[in-house]
Amino acid sequence: KHILIVPGDGIGQEVTEVGKAVLVKIAEKFGHEFTYDEALMGHVAIEATGNPLPDETLEKMRNSDAILFGAVGHPKYDNDPTAKVRPEQGLLKMRKELGLYANLRPIKLFDELLGASSIRPEILKGSDILFFRELTGDIYFGEKGRKNDNNTAYDIAEYSRYEVERIARKAFEAARTRGKRLCSVDKANVLETSRLWREVVQALAPEYPDITVEHQFVDAAAMMLIKDPKRFDVVVTANLFGDILTDEASQIAGSMGMLASASVGDSTGVYEPIHGSAHDITGKGVANPLASVLSAALLLDISFGLKEESEAIISAVDKLLKDGFRTRDIADVTTPADKILNTQQAG
Amino acid sequence: KHILIVPGDGIGQEVTEVGKAVLVKIAEKFGHEFTYDEALMGHVAIEATGNPLPDETLEKMRNSDAILFGAVGHPKYDNDPTAKVRPEQGLLKMRKELGLYANLRPIKLFDELLGASSIRPEILKGSDILFFRELTGDIYFGEKGRKNDNNTAYDIAEYSRYEVERIARKAFEAARTRGKRLCSVDKANVLETSRLWREVVQALAPEYPDITVEHQFVDAAAMMLIKDPKRFDVVVTANLFGDILTDEASQIAGSMGMLASASVGDSTGVYEPIHGSAHDITGKGVANPLASVLSAALLLDISFGLKEESEAIISAVDKLLKDGFRTRDIADVTTPADKILNTQQAG
Ligand SMILES: CC(C)[C@H](C(=O)O)[C@@H](O)C(=O)O
Ligand SMILES: CC(C)[C@H](C(=O)O)[C@@H](O)C(=O)O
Repeated sequence: KHILIVPGDGIGQEVTEVGKAVLVKIAEKFGHEFTYDEALMGHVAIEATGNPLPDETLEKMRNSDAILFGAVGHPKYDNDPTAKVRPEQGLLKMRKELGLYANLRPIKLFDELLGASSIRPEILKGSDILFFRELTGDIYFGEKGRKNDNNTAYDIAEYSRYEVERIARKAFEAARTRGKRLCSVDKANVLETSRLWREVVQALAPEYPDITVEHQFVDAAAMMLIKDPKRFDVVVTANLFGDILTDEASQIAGSMGMLASASVGDSTGVYEPIHGSAHDITGKGVANPLASVLSAALLLDISFGLKEESEAIISAVDKLLKDGFRTRDIADVTTPADKILNTQQAG
Repeated sequence: KHILIVPGDGIGQEVTEVGKAVLVKIAEKFGHEFTYDEALMGHVAIEATGNPLPDETLEKMRNSDAILFGAVGHPKYDNDPTAKVRPEQGLLKMRKELGLYANLRPIKLFDELLGASSIRPEILKGSDILFFRELTGDIYFGEKGRKNDNNTAYDIAEYSRYEVERIARKAFEAARTRGKRLCSVDKANVLETSRLWREVVQALAPEYPDITVEHQFVDAAAMMLIKDPKRFDVVVTANLFGDILTDEASQIAGSMGMLASASVGDSTGVYEPIHGSAHDITGKGVANPLASVLSAALLLDISFGLKEESEAIISAVDKLLKDGFRTRDIADVTTPADKILNTQQAG
């Protein structure tokens, strides 16, 4: 099995190193042969080649069995809305080129972190949500541009039936292996793309009579996630709504630093933290590497079918937390100074 | 001063009655002469006339000095994505026709309700956010439709410079009268409309040197609102992001049932709860009318400049809460049964 490591920008570099170290360790312990390669993407790729996703990187991605990815982004572009080349273009192109239409974001709180969230423990306890975010359509990939002498900007959101159907099926099937509840989130009272979305999900429902399907408007869902997270089991939603809701839901897990995601579709899979490049803490050694470590666990589980190996990683994380060790983002006033780890130690 | 009452659908009927009663009481107490009229909108208007916003209603709206509005919507349309006529069309048409481009949503927690929120009291205490949601542009109002034999749906998001500028100016000016911090929320790393948005806000900033401006991506903002709501003072954002973020932020105020909003622009203003028609609790007398009562307070303040009258309403709500009275949505296990009010009593 061949794994491509793409650290990307900012803390992506620091945390992916730890994620990779865990893969190496697991291979050793369980007697697997993994080979590794590395490639550039994002701001670092722009600096080196002018292109946020160089052809060489894309080629290496296509030839991999799975990709452990860090993050891309840089404040330089964020503050310059007129920049023509941006790190995020590389990310979006990767998703499209590799056909990664399903982004899975499991949101589960390690019991030890009940205190790290801004949400009350009694509301949180027992929350366990699996998001399916559609990842290669919507307003992310429709035509966009300027008109009227640069004074009007537009973005086109678009969905086709088959795009909704394939992500919805994945979500229905996942619900079967879990709590058998599916919540589809849209804005069908306003958007035509959402009405198509709802039509397709409604049409599929009879094929999954064992699954209880609910439809929520995105505004209501954004509220309900915080008010009563236990209400949700599997959630399926469009690209943009998924982006917003999963970041919000990170608070259910105590910190974004704990959340991994898997992007899968036609061939290879990409595994990455849901946090970004976080340039404000880059290079300080304080980034929480557990999202990358848990991304490695997802990789083993989903792309390689290595359940036991994946579980071993999750148990190790659990033990680390039970032993009281914390990176700063999940520490609180009761954490003793000698239990506050730096990035490498935590990995 | 002439006030139009538009109760709309579901609990809109129940709560607006209470909001109006408060206006009548205030007029009596402070010696004002308000005249009232009533009009249909939403599902009730469709049933009566086939049109969610009948011309007669629009005419009455144009002739009013302010409008106290309830809510529109009905599950019948939500579950039928192919319905051609929908209550929400009336709402959107009203916003567009009356030029209500600025939707103000103040999110402030009454101290007494610290316990009603799913967020920890120590995170919440002292939160006070004023949202400016753009209300007549974005993906709500661009062209939308189907193509490819009805198999592809699209929605166009659009913003022009002047649209961003006028709402941004309102937000900058409001920040001056408050904490002097403005957070503009967009998705400029992906959307062209957001890049235009950011350009315009950046270009205005030098005119308001006393205001500290920050730009956040919508996904990060959705997370930060829950993690650290006190970080925000005034927030300005596009129509769709504002819809999602303000519903989410309702948890900061304990319940949607406590939140009022003002939609203003070129002429008359519309004042309404941010909650919807809530057909699940309609007719049960359990709806919290305080959002409508507080909408009446906003109306007096913003459209009529009657600060003292507005304050009197807010104090009365505060006293009611201090006296321990609660509707069900803001009650908790410690609320004695005889302090749990029905809609009318709470008003
Ligand atoms: C960096 C950005 C383009 C990206 C997105 O919006 O998809 C990120 O927020 C994510 O969720 O992976
Ligand atoms: C009912 C719906 C169309 C509306 C909106 O999305 O604007 C509502 O959610 C609101 O926030 O006023």
